[in-house]
Amino acid sequence: MRTVDWYADGVRLIDQRLLPNRVERPVYHDYVEVARAIKDMVVRGAPAIGATAAFGLALAGFQSPASDRLELLRDLERAAAVLRQARPTAVNLSWALDRLLRVAADEDLDTAGDVRAALLAAAQKLADEDVALNRRMGFNGAALVEDGDTILHHCNTGALAAVDFGTALGVVFAAHEQGKHVHVLVDETRPRLQGARLTAWELEQAGISYEIIADGAAGHFLHRGQVNLCLVGADRVAANGDVANKIGTYSVAVLAHENGVPFYSVVPTSTVDLALADGDLIPIEERGAGEVLGLQVGGEAVAPAGARARNPAFDVTPHRYLTAIVTENGVVRPPYVKNLARAVRAEL
Amino acid sequence: MRTVDWYADGVRLIDQRLLPNRVERPVYHDYVEVARAIKDMVVRGAPAIGATAAFGLALAGFQSPASDRLELLRDLERAAAVLRQARPTAVNLSWALDRLLRVAADEDLDTAGDVRAALLAAAQKLADEDVALNRRMGFNGAALVEDGDTILHHCNTGALAAVDFGTALGVVFAAHEQGKHVHVLVDETRPRLQGARLTAWELEQAGISYEIIADGAAGHFLHRGQVNLCLVGADRVAANGDVANKIGTYSVAVLAHENGVPFYSVVPTSTVDLALADGDLIPIEERGAGEVLGLQVGGEAVAPAGARARNPAFDVTPHRYLTAIVTENGVVRPPYVKNLARAVRAEL
Repeated sequence: MRTVDWYADGVRLIDQRLLPNRVERPVYHDYVEVARAIKDMVVRGAPAIGATAAFGLALAGFQSPASDRLELLRDLERAAAVLRQARPTAVNLSWALDRLLRVAADEDLDTAGDVRAALLAAAQKLADEDVALNRRMGFNGAALVEDGDTILHHCNTGALAAVDFGTALGVVFAAHEQGKHVHVLVDETRPRLQGARLTAWELEQAGISYEIIADGAAGHFLHRGQVNLCLVGADRVAANGDVANKIGTYSVAVLAHENGVPFYSVVPTSTVDLALADGDLIPIEERGAGEVLGLQVGGEAVAPAGARARNPAFDVTPHRYLTAIVTENGVVRPPYVKNLARAVRAEL
Repeated sequence: MRTVDWYADGVRLIDQRLLPNRVERPVYHDYVEVARAIKDMVVRGAPAIGATAAFGLALAGFQSPASDRLELLRDLERAAAVLRQARPTAVNLSWALDRLLRVAADEDLDTAGDVRAALLAAAQKLADEDVALNRRMGFNGAALVEDGDTILHHCNTGALAAVDFGTALGVVFAAHEQGKHVHVLVDETRPRLQGARLTAWELEQAGISYEIIADGAAGHFLHRGQVNLCLVGADRVAANGDVANKIGTYSVAVLAHENGVPFYSVVPTSTVDLALADGDLIPIEERGAGEVLGLQVGGEAVAPAGARARNPAFDVTPHRYLTAIVTENGVVRPPYVKNLARAVRAEL
C-alpha cells in the first residue's frame, strides 16, 4: 500500500490525519485539491510531498482543455505554480515539479496527448524510483546500526513520509530485516504528533519494539546513556549540510551532540538543495496557532480562551551537530560542501 | 485565592486538573485523601506540595482519636509516612513534614489538644511564610530581568505551584509589577501540559504578554536569538547545584547554554537538599504511560492501540548549565557547594 499512487484517473493518498484510527484513501481529480491536501497535511513528509506534486501535475495535464502542446505547457506552468506554493520548506516539492516540467517541455513530444502521457509516466517513474532509493538509503544507514541499539527518532519518516519504506525509519526497517534487534524511542512530535500517530503505528505493524516519549523527555534519555543513535529525516538540506526538518529536530541534535550520541539525517539526494549555501536561507513555514492551541484532553480545551501561540513547523540544525547524512548514494561525512555535491552527482 | 488553605475544618485545594476550564476548590477531611490528591496532581508544584502536606498532617492530628500526647505523636508519624510517599521527587514534601513533626514533638506542649493546635498554627505559618518568601524570591529574580525581555518558561511555577505568587513565574510577576514589559514564551510542557493549562491561564489573568509553544520549538527560538533568559522552578536542588525539575528542563538548559542565553532556577531554600551531594542521587518519579498515550484530538486517540510509552516526570540538570539559582535569600552563583549552603543559612 503506497502513500501516494495513481488510481481511477486521479491521485490517491492515505489521509494521514485520520491515522492510526482509520485508513482512508481519498482519490483526487483536481490538482487544486491535491495542492490543498499537501497544505492541509493529508500527506506530509518531504519525499511523499514530492511524489504527490508529480502526480498532481500529471493530473493537471489531463484536466487542461488544451489541444495544443504549447497551450498545455502554459497550463502546466500555472498548475505547477499552484502546487509549488502548497508548502514552502520541503525542497522535494519544487524538485519533483521541475523534473516533470522538463519532461513536458521535451520537444520530441509532438502533441498535447503525448505530453500528458509522458507526464504520467514520469510521475510514475519518480514514485517507483523513490521506493527503490529509499531501500538503498535504508540499507546504507543500517550499516550504522548495531544489534541491540536503542534509536531515538523524531517525527515520522517511514513509509508514510515517502512513497513507501521511508527514510530514517527505512533505516530502522532495514536493520530489522537484517535481523538486528533494535528498540525505538519515538518522540511524539508536537504539535501534530506524527511520532505518536504515524511512527508508532508503522513500528507496531512491523513488529519492532518501541516506546513513545514526550519530546521533552528525549534529553533525559540521551543524558542517561540510554540512546545509541538518533535518526531523523529532512525537508531540505543546504549545500553546507545544514538540515531543515520538523520542529524539535535542532533540539535533539544539540542534546545528542552534548552527550556524544551519533545523530544522522537520512535523506534522498532530491532533498539536497545545492542552490542554498546554508540553512539560514531555508524558508521556515509558520503554521496556524490552532495546531498548538487546539489540543483537547477529555473533550476539554487545554489552553485558556484567548491564548496565543507560535508554531514554526520546522527548524534548522547547523551541520556541526550532524555525525553524517545518509543518502541513497552513500553516507556523506564532512566536509559537506564537497561531499554532498558528490553524493548528488552519485560520485561518492 | 490561595492554592492551598485551611477551610471548614479541612484542607482546601484548587483542583488544577480542571483548569483552565473550571475553578473547583474541594475540601478534604481525610489526610489519606490529601495524600492521594498530591499523588493524582490535584495539587502540584514543589512549594504547594509542601504546604499541602503540612495542612494534611495538621488534619491527621484532628482525625486521630488519641487523647494522650504520645499516642497522638505515634499517629502523626504514621500519617507523615503516608503523606511522604505521595510523590518522591519534590523535597519540600519531606521538608514540611519534618518541620511539623518537630513542632509536634515539642515537650512544652502538654496535651494532645495543645499538639493539634500547634500543628495547625505551624502549617498556617508555613503557608504564610511561603507567600512572603515567594515575593522576596520574585523581587530577587526581577533584578535579572530587563525591560523588553522575552523569557522562556517551562512547566508551571506560578501561584498555582506555591501557596501564592510562585517561584520562577513569581519573578515574571515581580518584573511586571516593576513596570518592566516582558513577553513569555510558554513551553506547553507535555505530557501534563502545565504550561498550556496553568501558566498561560495565570499570565492571561495577570495581563502579561505570552505565547504558548510546543516544547520542541524552544530550541528554535533560543537559536534564533529570540529569548533573553530562561526561568524554571525546581523540585529538588542537590548540594552541588544540580536541579531536578519537570521533564524537559534539562533540554531547555542545554539549549540555553549552547546559545549563550542565561538560565535560572528559582527556588525557595526549602527545595535545596543539602543532604544530597549531587543530582544523580535524586529519585526520579516515573508516572503512568497513560499521561503520554491518553492524548486525544477531536475525541480520537492519537497513539495506536497497544502502544507503549516511557514517562519520567522529572529530569536532572547538571549545575554547569545553570547561570544562577535564585532564592528568597539572594541570587546564588557558583561555586554552588559553598554558596547554596550559605543561602540555606541565610548568610549570603
